[in-house]
Amino acid sequence: MQRSKTWREGGLTLKNSTGAYLIGALGSIATTVAAGTIALGKGLTDTTGMITSTPLFEGVDLADTAQLVLGGCDIRKRTPSRTAPPLLGEATGISPRILEAIKREMAQYRAGVQTGIASNCGEAIESLCAGSSRRKTTLRNEIKTIRNRIRKFRESRELDTVVVVNLASTEPPLELEACHHDLGMLEQILDDNGSQKVRASTLYAYAAIREGCPYINFTPSNAALFPAMAELAQSCQIPVMGDDGKTGETLVKSALAPMFTYRNLDVMSWMGFNILGNMDGQVLDNPGNLESKIRTKDRVLSKILGYSPHSKVKIDYVPSLGDRKTAWDFIHFRGFLGAEMSMQFVWQGLDSLLAAPLVLDMIRLAEFSKRRGEAGLMPQLASFFKAPIGVATHGLPEQFRMLADYAEKLQQAQGLVSPPRRP
Amino acid sequence: MQRSKTWREGGLTLKNSTGAYLIGALGSIATTVAAGTIALGKGLTDTTGMITSTPLFEGVDLADTAQLVLGGCDIRKRTPSRTAPPLLGEATGISPRILEAIKREMAQYRAGVQTGIASNCGEAIESLCAGSSRRKTTLRNEIKTIRNRIRKFRESRELDTVVVVNLASTEPPLELEACHHDLGMLEQILDDNGSQKVRASTLYAYAAIREGCPYINFTPSNAALFPAMAELAQSCQIPVMGDDGKTGETLVKSALAPMFTYRNLDVMSWMGFNILGNMDGQVLDNPGNLESKIRTKDRVLSKILGYSPHSKVKIDYVPSLGDRKTAWDFIHFRGFLGAEMSMQFVWQGLDSLLAAPLVLDMIRLAEFSKRRGEAGLMPQLASFFKAPIGVATHGLPEQFRMLADYAEKLQQAQGLVSPPRRP
Amino acid sequence: MQRSKTWREGGLTLKNSTGAYLIGALGSIATTVAAGTIALGKGLTDTTGMITSTPLFEGVDLADTAQLVLGGCDIRKRTPSRTAPPLLGEATGISPRILEAIKREMAQYRAGVQTGIASNCGEAIESLCAGSSRRKTTLRNEIKTIRNRIRKFRESRELDTVVVVNLASTEPPLELEACHHDLGMLEQILDDNGSQKVRASTLYAYAAIREGCPYINFTPSNAALFPAMAELAQSCQIPVMGDDGKTGETLVKSALAPMFTYRNLDVMSWMGFNILGNMDGQVLDNPGNLESKIRTKDRVLSKILGYSPHSKVKIDYVPSLGDRKTAWDFIHFRGFLGAEMSMQFVWQGLDSLLAAPLVLDMIRLAEFSKRRGEAGLMPQLASFFKAPIGVATHGLPEQFRMLADYAEKLQQAQGLVSPPRRP
Amino acid sequence: MQRSKTWREGGLTLKNSTGAYLIGALGSIATTVAAGTIALGKGLTDTTGMITSTPLFEGVDLADTAQLVLGGCDIRKRTPSRTAPPLLGEATGISPRILEAIKREMAQYRAGVQTGIASNCGEAIESLCAGSSRRKTTLRNEIKTIRNRIRKFRESRELDTVVVVNLASTEPPLELEACHHDLGMLEQILDDNGSQKVRASTLYAYAAIREGCPYINFTPSNAALFPAMAELAQSCQIPVMGDDGKTGETLVKSALAPMFTYRNLDVMSWMGFNILGNMDGQVLDNPGNLESKIRTKDRVLSKILGYSPHSKVKIDYVPSLGDRKTAWDFIHFRGFLGAEMSMQFVWQGLDSLLAAPLVLDMIRLAEFSKRRGEAGLMPQLASFFKAPIGVATHGLPEQFRMLADYAEKLQQAQGLVSPPRRP
Repeated sequence: MQRSKTWREGGLTLKNSTGAYLIGALGSIATTVAAGTIALGKGLTDTTGMITSTPLFEGVDLADTAQLVLGGCDIRKRTPSRTAPPLLGEATGISPRILEAIKREMAQYRAGVQTGIASNCGEAIESLCAGSSRRKTTLRNEIKTIRNRIRKFRESRELDTVVVVNLASTEPPLELEACHHDLGMLEQILDDNGSQKVRASTLYAYAAIREGCPYINFTPSNAALFPAMAELAQSCQIPVMGDDGKTGETLVKSALAPMFTYRNLDVMSWMGFNILGNMDGQVLDNPGNLESKIRTKDRVLSKILGYSPHSKVKIDYVPSLGDRKTAWDFIHFRGFLGAEMSMQFVWQGLDSLLAAPLVLDMIRLAEFSKRRGEAGLMPQLASFFKAPIGVATHGLPEQFRMLADYAEKLQQAQGLVSPPRRP
Repeated sequence: MQRSKTWREGGLTLKNSTGAYLIGALGSIATTVAAGTIALGKGLTDTTGMITSTPLFEGVDLADTAQLVLGGCDIRKRTPSRTAPPLLGEATGISPRILEAIKREMAQYRAGVQTGIASNCGEAIESLCAGSSRRKTTLRNEIKTIRNRIRKFRESRELDTVVVVNLASTEPPLELEACHHDLGMLEQILDDNGSQKVRASTLYAYAAIREGCPYINFTPSNAALFPAMAELAQSCQIPVMGDDGKTGETLVKSALAPMFTYRNLDVMSWMGFNILGNMDGQVLDNPGNLESKIRTKDRVLSKILGYSPHSKVKIDYVPSLGDRKTAWDFIHFRGFLGAEMSMQFVWQGLDSLLAAPLVLDMIRLAEFSKRRGEAGLMPQLASFFKAPIGVATHGLPEQFRMLADYAEKLQQAQGLVSPPRRP
Repeated sequence: MQRSKTWREGGLTLKNSTGAYLIGALGSIATTVAAGTIALGKGLTDTTGMITSTPLFEGVDLADTAQLVLGGCDIRKRTPSRTAPPLLGEATGISPRILEAIKREMAQYRAGVQTGIASNCGEAIESLCAGSSRRKTTLRNEIKTIRNRIRKFRESRELDTVVVVNLASTEPPLELEACHHDLGMLEQILDDNGSQKVRASTLYAYAAIREGCPYINFTPSNAALFPAMAELAQSCQIPVMGDDGKTGETLVKSALAPMFTYRNLDVMSWMGFNILGNMDGQVLDNPGNLESKIRTKDRVLSKILGYSPHSKVKIDYVPSLGDRKTAWDFIHFRGFLGAEMSMQFVWQGLDSLLAAPLVLDMIRLAEFSKRRGEAGLMPQLASFFKAPIGVATHGLPEQFRMLADYAEKLQQAQGLVSPPRRP
Repeated sequence: MQRSKTWREGGLTLKNSTGAYLIGALGSIATTVAAGTIALGKGLTDTTGMITSTPLFEGVDLADTAQLVLGGCDIRKRTPSRTAPPLLGEATGISPRILEAIKREMAQYRAGVQTGIASNCGEAIESLCAGSSRRKTTLRNEIKTIRNRIRKFRESRELDTVVVVNLASTEPPLELEACHHDLGMLEQILDDNGSQKVRASTLYAYAAIREGCPYINFTPSNAALFPAMAELAQSCQIPVMGDDGKTGETLVKSALAPMFTYRNLDVMSWMGFNILGNMDGQVLDNPGNLESKIRTKDRVLSKILGYSPHSKVKIDYVPSLGDRKTAWDFIHFRGFLGAEMSMQFVWQGLDSLLAAPLVLDMIRLAEFSKRRGEAGLMPQLASFFKAPIGVATHGLPEQFRMLADYAEKLQQAQGLVSPPRRP
């Protein structure tokens, strides 16, 4: 994949200058992001699923999705025979016609993926590791390695901005302590090589910010963007946001729960059962890793309703389903005169295909934020996350309004902002 | 039910003076409104289901629900043996304990219901009529009769304001013509006794407005609040609003459809199948009357999405279900890279128990509007309707925001508004 | 069939001679059995739900359901304030009209219930115990106490036959050892007071059989009818059967799974999620007790299909649902040319109201078996159980055929069998 | 596809001599039958979905599916551009890998399809016709043409037996009269060219039987196998069977409804809503053609239950779904003590992929029947049909038992039956 050239054949081209460095680059979401970028570049598909491609952002000078330069790292070995087929097989829902047409570029993408690190991520994740990735070294050295890689990626591809996106599997939750709330203490932990207080996602986030890269935590892992890290981002003038991309059951939940408040209906119970068969499901079968996911999923409901109904979220691994996540939610509520009623929904979504356009939306918005000089958390991205950091609003409509208001403001200020060019 | 009670405990005792005149007063919704009002008055239930009883309206001096005086008319005979049992039987979902405790007051309510008119309402409705109601008289005389009844209701119960609410069964749609867009022409039609250009709901709305009563059209019947009638309301300084209370499947639809726009997902098909067994279902089994309902239901989707997916709404009569409406909606959508996904929901709601608190909310808000001197359409009530007249917004969240903004404005202006007093 | 004494007041009475001694007599199923028997006796309801009341058993001289004499024991205190209301409250689905009409007789039933034992049943159950029931005594003494009670029940009510039915909450599974496969060794265990090798259900089953009473194990507890106990029943000429009444999700499963075999469709995954809010649900929230339930539920599928798809059965406690068990099953299957398809079902059943008629069916059939001189396991009852002991057939249709064949045989042999009479 | 192959590996090589002549040969089911046969022949797939390939028929000398010779006719033009893509596009659920591998053979199959007739089939079907097929000729001439084609197919491919299968779209129902119950009168109608008394399916069935070919009516069209035609089959010693292949919602219904009878539960309402987007759906959007379908679907329930609950079956055309039929059934039932409960299921099946293996099963079984000298209706095939002609049993389990009993009998008698040989 050469960067000073459009994907389209022929003609003179302006230099593209936005890149994304994906952590978990061989995973299902990252490869779908790559497939989508390539397919868009070749005119094989449209931008359905991306909100930044709608009239809402008309006239806002976001980076061109089809020109994004993608790279990244993964803890899995790149052996094609082991990872390639499941990554983009028939179960993903991408048409075989498109898969065939982008085969060559996808192989190039995969070939460029570097070996990642998996420090203190829980057994389920570590078992995926290629042996070489379980390095014995200091935290500061790990960070240096990551920064070098990101820098090399940026320089070799002549990129102005690299957005780092965490698409790795869910780590077990980190018990937050004082050192995660204070930047000075965090630095000390890193100096002291306090590896039990951090996880791989901490190192990536720290390295990205120090390297001047906007950072998106698409996973529920809470070790990436705890308060001290947000403080770092603020002080380094880098935009960051997380946690946990909102793609399926929780998306519906956050769209539906407000309805019950609009009608003053009393939700007594809201049970959610998710079944899925991709690697995400496999990792979540491990109670430790599941814990992180459930935490961000469960929070949503009580935040929207203002009280806590009897509620559980369950996730079960069903291999035959592959990437097709199926969720059944049962809502038992009470209305006027004590009348009991219920609502159920079944969501049958392709997780990675729902996630990929959000990732692309956020790469564009984060790059733009950096160009505008925004720093720290990006609350305008709240609607993309299950647990938007620093945002009190959990209802999807209100979250979306934050994005729409931001877009409107941008459109008004557009004269002031100009896209990055190169001679 | 005694009517001289305090608005709130303690302090000065002010007479309550708000009444509601319900058209279709023996129907399922109206009797549930009555049961709720009585049960609230006796402290047997709470205000779950009413948005006007939430903190959103805290400090806004709305009429006390428990003190509402209810009356109305119905085309059905009041023979208890025929109508009483189905009205509030076990199938309604109201606890037998409450039903037992309000038996006497409910009988009084029923005894006070007058015989209504059913001019040009379609066969399904006319077949319900007691013989005496199919009067041969002029439109102007019909209107005079209705006005006399409403006036007598107001005077005999010493009410300051009577809100008229159309809770009758759905009429077949009226083909709107020039005369329905121009008040002068409408008056001429009434003078000329042009009974084919009006329906019963037209006469009730006209009479209510002329009698100084706010008017709510809770039904899909489009013969009540066509443009000429809104013009009349405006010129008479009377607040009015409609059409078609949004209680079940459409409520969910208007909460859920925006989610697909927030994510730029392409809804290909949205099919809705409703089954229900109450009188509403029976009347809707008649294709003419169904037509009105489907029109208001179907409009919602394309208005929210901005395009028209393949969509149908079906309603089938299933007697065993009684008032428990069950709806299955199947949504087939397309996301990134052409991926096809689906969502389904099943709604199991008690129609009348969902509708009644909305009726009470709107009686309170319409009375308040009148007191504040508002005239014509009440867009702040958009979230209560399937087809809110004069409102372009169809997404539930945006509609609710209109109500919330209104409430907030009221809270700020509260000092200026004072409740009705009597010497 | 009027062969005995009525619940009805006054008049001359013939002796009724069939009784049922219910273990867990204050539980939801047992009280529903009582309510049904009383309501049938008073002509307030019909026999819907009972297969023995259909033409299939026409002419077979089964005991009259309305004449059954019910008694039993429970580990819960009989304090009406604590147990009475939840037992037959609104959530059960029984019409309030019937509940009102049988109030007096239900109180009598409850008053007659004795305090039960709960030896080695797991913490969840033991926590329900009234203090007095946690006796310190030998196993042989416990058995003697139970036998005395059953005998007294039989004699005081002048009954010919007493069927003992285990309707208690699920015990944790008992690890079966050699002593549970050999009657001699079991007797030795009882002599040696080996209380860790038995549970309360063991003692009840042993006592019932020794007392000459047919025994039905409606629970999944495997400590009641292990092989040594079946051997005892055989040698004592007593009919017995279990385990685990098949009322809801498993019933549907056993009706539906054969369809996939009839079509040679390959079931890849079958996931079942149950939510319920009665005491059964509460007890099953305890992992130990749940284990028993899941075992009998899960077994069904692979036995019918002949292979083991990816399958899980989950049970979650959702208090607001009360006795209304709701289950979602998702079935993912593969057909011709590798095509993947799915089926889902949602079951919304009232557990106790589904169970009670089966209990009555089996009381009648067990009493009849005893009268006919049948001994040991009753395979004809297979269709009533999730895990019918000693029966290889798990498909519902084939199980039902066993019952139908039995009924047919009875009808042919009817001349030979005569009901028990008393002078 | 070579046709002179062994029945089984090793031993003597016997010529394969079974063919199938498919009416509607370019339709979705027929092309799936062809694809399956070819894919089996190439070892690309297995026989999942075919009951005749299970141990139930082990040792029964049925024709080898992979060696079947397929031909047929269709009223559509064979223009590949119009018909090929929709026939086996991505929506069918067949893996693209298989589709690619059988492309050449599929083209050969399509090339061999002849132009069919569509006399008196209703507008929806006739509008599909290529102009040339709307011949003006006599019924006897039409029959002669059909017979000639079948004969030529048999002779040119050197087949011993040709089974004719009606896979065409549903015709409107034929009002059956005396002439459809008496073979002599039917012959007279054909002589008199009474084209209003027959439909295309009548002519095909008549021609097939007269030509000595077993005939399977997989469609709901009742014009094919009315009593006079069964009489003809009997007298010509030809096995025939129909009507309407049971693949989806009705299959589930016939598996599930017996459960309610086994438990003596009272089904009050059973509503079924089908949505689908294939040509079948398009044709069924025409009320006349739908009528036939609904008739065979609706009959099932009351036949199984022994009474008629409130029941409707609806079919709606939803183009985006293609061949993926989705059905929602809602069952409202009453149990013990009047308790109301419900069950719902959602079936998401690929219609043609469910139908094709049944067609192959029946081709094998019909050919075998003919070899055994069976004549007239084949009740052993009842489980394959929604409305099995001449069979009183509608429950799937009992129907399947008829097949299983037949298979068992065959296995026992196997020595007496020998496969067709050629010198």
